[in-house]
Amino acid sequence: MNRAILIKGVQWQGQPTDLLIEGTSISRIDSSIDAPDAIRIDGQGKALIPGLINAHTHAAMTLLRGIGDDMPLMPWLKEKIWPNEARLTDDDVYWGARLACLEMIKSGTTAFLDMYYKLPATARAVDEMGIRGLLSCTCFDHFDPALTERSKREIQTLFARMSACNPRIRFALGPHAIYTVSGTLLQWVDAFAQEHDLTIHIHLAETEDEIQNAIRQFGSTPVRYLHRLGILSPRLSIAHALYVDDEEIRILAGEGVKVVHNPASNMKLASGAAFRFAEMRRAGITVGIGTDGCSSSNNLDMIEAMKLASLMGKAWRKDPKVLAAADMLAAATEQGADILGIRAGRIEAGYLADLCLVDLHIPAFTPNHNFVSNLVYAANGSCVDTVICDGRIVMQNKKVPGEEEILRQVNERARKFI
Amino acid sequence: MNRAILIKGVQWQGQPTDLLIEGTSISRIDSSIDAPDAIRIDGQGKALIPGLINAHTHAAMTLLRGIGDDMPLMPWLKEKIWPNEARLTDDDVYWGARLACLEMIKSGTTAFLDMYYKLPATARAVDEMGIRGLLSCTCFDHFDPALTERSKREIQTLFARMSACNPRIRFALGPHAIYTVSGTLLQWVDAFAQEHDLTIHIHLAETEDEIQNAIRQFGSTPVRYLHRLGILSPRLSIAHALYVDDEEIRILAGEGVKVVHNPASNMKLASGAAFRFAEMRRAGITVGIGTDGCSSSNNLDMIEAMKLASLMGKAWRKDPKVLAAADMLAAATEQGADILGIRAGRIEAGYLADLCLVDLHIPAFTPNHNFVSNLVYAANGSCVDTVICDGRIVMQNKKVPGEEEILRQVNERARKFI
Repeated sequence: MNRAILIKGVQWQGQPTDLLIEGTSISRIDSSIDAPDAIRIDGQGKALIPGLINAHTHAAMTLLRGIGDDMPLMPWLKEKIWPNEARLTDDDVYWGARLACLEMIKSGTTAFLDMYYKLPATARAVDEMGIRGLLSCTCFDHFDPALTERSKREIQTLFARMSACNPRIRFALGPHAIYTVSGTLLQWVDAFAQEHDLTIHIHLAETEDEIQNAIRQFGSTPVRYLHRLGILSPRLSIAHALYVDDEEIRILAGEGVKVVHNPASNMKLASGAAFRFAEMRRAGITVGIGTDGCSSSNNLDMIEAMKLASLMGKAWRKDPKVLAAADMLAAATEQGADILGIRAGRIEAGYLADLCLVDLHIPAFTPNHNFVSNLVYAANGSCVDTVICDGRIVMQNKKVPGEEEILRQVNERARKFI
Repeated sequence: MNRAILIKGVQWQGQPTDLLIEGTSISRIDSSIDAPDAIRIDGQGKALIPGLINAHTHAAMTLLRGIGDDMPLMPWLKEKIWPNEARLTDDDVYWGARLACLEMIKSGTTAFLDMYYKLPATARAVDEMGIRGLLSCTCFDHFDPALTERSKREIQTLFARMSACNPRIRFALGPHAIYTVSGTLLQWVDAFAQEHDLTIHIHLAETEDEIQNAIRQFGSTPVRYLHRLGILSPRLSIAHALYVDDEEIRILAGEGVKVVHNPASNMKLASGAAFRFAEMRRAGITVGIGTDGCSSSNNLDMIEAMKLASLMGKAWRKDPKVLAAADMLAAATEQGADILGIRAGRIEAGYLADLCLVDLHIPAFTPNHNFVSNLVYAANGSCVDTVICDGRIVMQNKKVPGEEEILRQVNERARKFI
């Protein structure tokens, strides 16, 4: 069992507060707590926030950061991403995922929902870095029945191998998208997920082209197509959902499907800005925030992602009142936790001890008229000083053990990319 | 005269490079330079960039950071900004501007174009902090002839007082906007600027309402109105210019008017996203980037501003190729320098020694396939390690002398705001 941790005098809800962590959870929050045997953290000049939750990423793609910017989608995939992904070894994915975890920790993220291949390499990285990952294994069959069967076998093998894993690291299913995965495989994935109580994560309704192609190929829009296949359920979380109409929002809400908004990626790839946050929340849909992979959004900073989500939404709607700072923080914490299926995202006794201490002695929090506004609109990931995940300290004084080695390994491995 | 500075082994254009600063300028750039008497800076693991130039801000408004977010423009101005600005003393403005300079230095900005009142207090702050300010004094007469006369006298007095100032700090004219400043005063300001060779800075074409009101009140759009008044010239730089048509772009280009784009402010206040960067550049207009004041954009981070400009433009145009990273860096350096009228914004012998060393040993620059992409899309202001302005070191190892005192003073003064 972890040694208890006592945080003394940290700012929380505008008051200096003590917080005690026992085991993997928050056990007490009070104005003054005594715990002589606990590891003591001085919270003076710092504020407490829940660990942020990055609800859509491709961790190991840190390796391809900046390799093909300012390019249209298809040349970017064909010339830059696919040829380089074909060169990735298990060890590359391991080091790329360690860099992703390092970057997430440094910017206050304690849990993430990933989609990538070579999943055991990512799992090993997450295990060692001490944060939480819901790792969905990418699959696609390109509508080829032979590949459908191979995908099924691979998922079964991987599931058997991963189910014995650390509770911080959980297995999920990641059918890539409706244009790369057949309806047959999607339905099998759904049945497998139901049988083993697993989450399914998919890219959906990301571009206008995808909508038009779905209408041509399947006779309906992406959400309606999945509805017809019978695979909309509370097990499913969809990344993007940029292009959904009112009826589709009602369908998603009715089936309990969760949505992940990725503002940086949507803007940088020019997928669009018209994310319907307000309508989805009003309909009762859980909406989290993600960064997407570093080859499309270039960093994993969830504080930046909150700001981008808010600013993009205000500009698109021509309404400065929408997507307020507190709504963004809730999306990046409580709602992310709901998507990952973990009891986290809140500072409350009984919740997982996944939390951050933010340094208030910087210009972004000066003056500190409104802490949440400063966090979302003025700060960036560099404000995070201390990170605790699962009741253990993973960063203190902005230092993560082993970070030099991670940067060195990735720089060396990245030389082979084109 | 400043002691010479020798930067050894810094990354520049992909090579380890030595750079010598003598007096206030860059004197040599070579693979190996020897200068035994110079102050030596170890550039290993760091990259060189020109100091960034924030071409539109209201420095002292750091004091009102986060005081009224997620609000519509008029209630925000009436309930939050104006009542609090009425409480500002000279000393408040001085400390608010010192905080702004601190924040700018920490995020790599070495020069800025300001618009605010109580200008001598800002000038004193900039002088002490060691960076460069082109300080435009806000004026407005609200179409009242008595106030027109008072404005003229104030400008004359202030100009006489400021002209003896430090060469890092220059005086400019800041007629607030066409809806707060009469045509009479605008024309007087232009004549005064011409007589004394001064820059004029104005907010223009920021919102759709402003366009509609200008058509009602003056019979034409804002750019055409200023054209008719005869005050479009290379002396004029306009902040925002969100709503300009093709003919107006031709007019601005023909008259040599410069434009400052403020993506964070335009998005957060929901003014709009349709900034016509590509058309303006094609027409030959100098386009810089600004953050606007901290009460509308919440920070002064020009690296974030470059990313926002690019992402907002790509999303609005639905084209990932536009507003490429290198174009954003040029706007935030060379073009900013052109707007401020200084020989800066380039790493070149003979140019002012206004430059930054960026720390490459962080996740944002790992791997470093493309430095400019990483700077604009992956990094934020916290990557800046060392800042030199006017041939003097103003930050080293991320520490600025006196920063604790600035944060303390601002926190104390901010208590009186409502």
